[in-house]
Amino acid sequence: MSDGTGDLLAEQQRYYAARAPEYDDWWLRRGRYAGEPEEERRWLCDVAELEESLRRFGPRGDVLELAAGTGLWTRRLVPLAERVLALDANEETLALNTPAAERVVADVFAWRPPRRFDLVFFSFWLSHVPESHFERFWRLVREALAPGGRVFLIDSGPRDTEPGDERQVRQLADGRQFRIVKRFWRPAELAGRVRSLGFELELAVTANGLFLHGGGAPR
Amino acid sequence: MSDGTGDLLAEQQRYYAARAPEYDDWWLRRGRYAGEPEEERRWLCDVAELEESLRRFGPRGDVLELAAGTGLWTRRLVPLAERVLALDANEETLALNTPAAERVVADVFAWRPPRRFDLVFFSFWLSHVPESHFERFWRLVREALAPGGRVFLIDSGPRDTEPGDERQVRQLADGRQFRIVKRFWRPAELAGRVRSLGFELELAVTANGLFLHGGGAPR
Repeated sequence: MSDGTGDLLAEQQRYYAARAPEYDDWWLRRGRYAGEPEEERRWLCDVAELEESLRRFGPRGDVLELAAGTGLWTRRLVPLAERVLALDANEETLALNTPAAERVVADVFAWRPPRRFDLVFFSFWLSHVPESHFERFWRLVREALAPGGRVFLIDSGPRDTEPGDERQVRQLADGRQFRIVKRFWRPAELAGRVRSLGFELELAVTANGLFLHGGGAPR
Repeated sequence: MSDGTGDLLAEQQRYYAARAPEYDDWWLRRGRYAGEPEEERRWLCDVAELEESLRRFGPRGDVLELAAGTGLWTRRLVPLAERVLALDANEETLALNTPAAERVVADVFAWRPPRRFDLVFFSFWLSHVPESHFERFWRLVREALAPGGRVFLIDSGPRDTEPGDERQVRQLADGRQFRIVKRFWRPAELAGRVRSLGFELELAVTANGLFLHGGGAPR
């Protein structure tokens, strides 16, 4: 297999399709994801902080969720929004998402928004966008936003990683391995980068450092 | 099999042990639980209302969760409480609960509280307590409460059922059938009943009628 980005992204997509049935175990800290009590308490506190952050931000109107996956956040957006379009590359994950959202299977890098949205939301997605696709992704976000529209994102908190290293190897419960993209962003670093692309985002890290979150709008 | 309540409760317990791996599908409306979009939207709105109701109530201190199950609510209590003891009759469900809670496998009707708690919480449990065990259950709640301690409950919303009918037959995804207890309470009816047992609870039904919720304290 070549190491071109296209192949890597295709492999990443297959990983999330295969991981669909066990994806929520990570979020719920079950099975091989379960840690020590104090570690799990910190996780749950940071999750509660994310939920509060999203509530304060106040999603409303017509919401587009990119890489919506199994619906961990789609289910929170639906009661706050007028309607939610949940986009994902894999039908395996969308099948586990909520029927309360309009579910569309599409490659985010090939998709064109059918209408303009009041909010574009994505969680645990931006860290999987490689540098080669970063600007293209934010152009899509801009194109998808109605006048006055906003962006909210959630992702992994910053980690110490080698500069320029954006690949990881992930393993499923059954041992199958996949190469994926994973980039850890610091809040100021990401805010600065997207400012150069025309977005003003207010980003923060949760109290225990586990998650990055925040929102804003195009300038 | 005799139709004694003991047998019925034992069968109910086995049902929830066997249902553990598929329990959350009900809450997340997956697979055979998935309904029409508008129905699912109502469900998610009522779930959000429950979460807001619990937040307003303000769980704190040392919390006892009875029939904690797979942890749908345990995970919300942990970030709000100082500590959480999660009790359940089945280790199969507690294994899916969070390590952030102290997990105890015990029959709630045979268990004695090891300490006094600031909050006793139970969700989708009271409707499974048969009339024969109802007063005993509330005596346990009283015994488990510290001075100033409070109670919060969540359960199914009221349904039209035959008076006196407290049995249901439930079927797992694989077709296995179990008899369980299921009693649907109206808020005023339940508040009146527990008032006679010395509890003052403020109960309500969510906007779409799906859930019963509320809290209070012994008088």
